[in-house]
Amino acid sequence: MTTDFLRGVSVVGIGQIPVLRLNPDPLKDMAAQAARLAMADAGVERVDALFAGNMLADELQNQKQIAALIADECGLVGIEALHVRAATATGAAALRMAYFAVASGEARLAMAVGVEKMSGGLVTPILAKALDARSETDAGHTLLSQNAALMQLYMDRHGVDEDVFNPFSLAAHHNARTNPYAIFKDKRVSDRTIRTSRVIFPPLRLYDASPVCDGAAAVVLARTEEARAYTDNPVRLLGSSVATDRFRVSDRDDPLELFAAAKSSYDGFRKANVHRNDISLFEAHDAFSVMACLQLEAVGFAGPGEGWRMAKEGRIRLKGDLPLTTFGGLKARGHPIGATALYQTCEIVLQLTERAGRNQVRDAKVAMLQSIGGVGSTVITHIFG
Amino acid sequence: MTTDFLRGVSVVGIGQIPVLRLNPDPLKDMAAQAARLAMADAGVERVDALFAGNMLADELQNQKQIAALIADECGLVGIEALHVRAATATGAAALRMAYFAVASGEARLAMAVGVEKMSGGLVTPILAKALDARSETDAGHTLLSQNAALMQLYMDRHGVDEDVFNPFSLAAHHNARTNPYAIFKDKRVSDRTIRTSRVIFPPLRLYDASPVCDGAAAVVLARTEEARAYTDNPVRLLGSSVATDRFRVSDRDDPLELFAAAKSSYDGFRKANVHRNDISLFEAHDAFSVMACLQLEAVGFAGPGEGWRMAKEGRIRLKGDLPLTTFGGLKARGHPIGATALYQTCEIVLQLTERAGRNQVRDAKVAMLQSIGGVGSTVITHIFG
Repeated sequence: MTTDFLRGVSVVGIGQIPVLRLNPDPLKDMAAQAARLAMADAGVERVDALFAGNMLADELQNQKQIAALIADECGLVGIEALHVRAATATGAAALRMAYFAVASGEARLAMAVGVEKMSGGLVTPILAKALDARSETDAGHTLLSQNAALMQLYMDRHGVDEDVFNPFSLAAHHNARTNPYAIFKDKRVSDRTIRTSRVIFPPLRLYDASPVCDGAAAVVLARTEEARAYTDNPVRLLGSSVATDRFRVSDRDDPLELFAAAKSSYDGFRKANVHRNDISLFEAHDAFSVMACLQLEAVGFAGPGEGWRMAKEGRIRLKGDLPLTTFGGLKARGHPIGATALYQTCEIVLQLTERAGRNQVRDAKVAMLQSIGGVGSTVITHIFG
Repeated sequence: MTTDFLRGVSVVGIGQIPVLRLNPDPLKDMAAQAARLAMADAGVERVDALFAGNMLADELQNQKQIAALIADECGLVGIEALHVRAATATGAAALRMAYFAVASGEARLAMAVGVEKMSGGLVTPILAKALDARSETDAGHTLLSQNAALMQLYMDRHGVDEDVFNPFSLAAHHNARTNPYAIFKDKRVSDRTIRTSRVIFPPLRLYDASPVCDGAAAVVLARTEEARAYTDNPVRLLGSSVATDRFRVSDRDDPLELFAAAKSSYDGFRKANVHRNDISLFEAHDAFSVMACLQLEAVGFAGPGEGWRMAKEGRIRLKGDLPLTTFGGLKARGHPIGATALYQTCEIVLQLTERAGRNQVRDAKVAMLQSIGGVGSTVITHIFG
C-alpha cells in the first residue's frame, strides 16, 4: 500500500575484515577499517550518514555513542551518525536505518557499519540481557538455555534426535573453508566432529552454536538511479521489513513457530514483489542450528517439523535448491553480532554479482537475509536482487 | 537539494508521565504508559513502527532489546520495533528514526518512545561511557569533569565568573514550577539558592547540572496530509538533522565552539526553510548551564561570549524574545536521557497548539529542539511549526 512512492535503494559498496577469535585492534579501528573498505569499494571518500550496529560495547568496551566515534575515526567529521540496535539482529537494524535514510531522501549515500569485539570479556551473561531481565534473565535463562529448550521441544514433538541438526553445521563449515573472512576458514569439520563435540547445554552441543568472535563489516547504500555512478555492480535492496513477536518465549502460543520470522518474511516478499520460490539463496540466522531449522519452517520453505530434512537432503548446500549460509553463516564465518548482517550483505552482493569465487551459487538472482533478535522477539528481513 | 520529494511528517499524538526522582514502575511499564497516552492522544490503538530511545538500561536494568519489549508491553505484537541511540541525545535519535519511517513511506504511523530509569544505580560512571573509553574515560574524564572544564574555559576567556550562568537555571526552575510533569514542579528556587548550592566539580555547582531522574515520553508521527484524521492539532516536523563533531573535545580547534550544534542547526533551518529569527521558542539542551549558553552561541542567537547576556537580560524568559526551556528544561523538568527529547517534543506541541497553560509563549509559530550527545559529539536538531 505504501510502496508506490518508495525510492529505490541499492548497495554500491561493501567492506569486511576477517572474523577472528581475537582482533587486537580497538573497536573503533576495526569498524573504521570495514567502513573505509566499503567507501573505497563505492569509490567515495565520504557518505552523508553512518548507522552503526553494535550490541555489547557498553559492557565490554565501556563505550557508548559509538556511531560518532566511528565517524570521527573515519575522518567523516560533520556527518550524521547514529547507533541502532535490536539485540542479536543489530546489524540488520543498522542496515534498515541506512535504507530509511536513502529511501526518505535525507541522505544520498548512507553507510551501515557493524562491529563487535566479543573477546573483551565473558559474553553469555551480557547476551542474556536480550531476554526480559525481570521474568527470564532473573529466573536463570540465557540465550543458550532457551535455544537448548527449543531444540529439546523440537526433538520431542517431531520424534527426532539431536543429530538431525548436524547437517546445518556441516554445510556451514564446508562453505566457510573457502571464505577468507571466516573465523573457521581452512578448518575441516566432519559429521563425526559434530557428533562428538562437547555438550554445552543439553541437548545443545558446541557445533550447534556460533562462536564468540571479533569482526566488522560495512555497506554503502545509494539511490538506485544513481547507483551506477559508484559501481558497475550495484545490487538492489528490494525489500526491508521488521516484525516483532511476543517478547517472552513463554508467552507464545507455540514456541516452535517463529511468528516474527513469518511476518517479516511475508512483508519483505510483498515489498520486494517476489515469492519465496524466487529466492536463490538464504543467509539465515544460524546462531543456533535449531534456529536455522525453525527459520526454514517459519518462512515456509519447509513444513512444520520438516526443516531439518532440507539440510539432510543436501538442499541447503551450494548446489542445492536453497543454498543456506553460503560463506559459512553465523556458525562458521562467525557471529560478531552487530556486524553479522553486514557480513551477510557483503556475501549476498558477492553472490548476486558473480564474485563469490568457490562459494558461488549458480544463477543467483534474488537473495534473502533474515536476522533474529533474541529468541525470535525481533526479526528483520532484507531481500536483494 | 533533496527536500523536493520529501514526504511531510507531523506530530499527531503526545504522551508524557511525570518525571520523578524514583518511579517504582519497571522500565517497560513506564515506557508503555507514555506510549499508550500518545496513541490515545492520536486516537489510535496501533502504530506501524516503534522506535525506542534509552541510554542506560544495559547496565542499570540489565535490559537490551527494549524496543520489542516495550512493543509487547503495549500489546503491539507484530509491529516493527528498533532501539536507537546517540548517548545523551538518544531521545532525539528515536524521533529522527520515526521521522525516517514515515518520510520513507515505510510506516504510516510511527511512534518514538523514550524511557530512562536512572534511579537504578550510580549513573556518573555509566554516563561517562559517552566519552572515548580509551583516551578520555580511562584518563579520568566524565561528563561532569568535561563540562566543568568548558565552564572554566568560558569564564577565563570571556572574563566572567560562574554566576553569569545562574539565570539559565533560574529561568528553567521558574518554568518548571507550573509544569505538572516536572521533577521540580512547585519548587521555589531563588538566585540565592543557586549561588549557595553545593559545588560538585569546580566551578560547576549543583544548580548548573540536570538531576538524575526517571521518566518516559512518547510522540506519534503521521504523514502531514493524513494528520487531521488523527488530531485537530497536528504540528508539522519541518526539519530534522544530525551532525557530528570531532569526537574528543581535545581534538577540537576550539572547545567552546560547538561545531555539530552549528552544523545541525544550519541543516535543520535549511530543511525547514526557516531562519533562526523565525524561531518562537528554543528547547535547548541545558544538561549543564554552560551547554545552554554555548548552544545559543553555536546556533547564532548570540555572538561568542555573549550567550549568558541573553539569560541575564531576561530574553530567554517566557515573555522574552527567545523563550528557552519553556517547561523547565533538562535542569528543572528533568533529563531522563532517552526520554528527554520526547518530553521536549510534547512541550513544543503544547506550545504550538496554544495548550501550554501558564507556560504558554505568545504567538508561538516555529519551535526548535536541539539535543546534544556527549560533550557535543553528536547534535540533533528538529524544527516544528
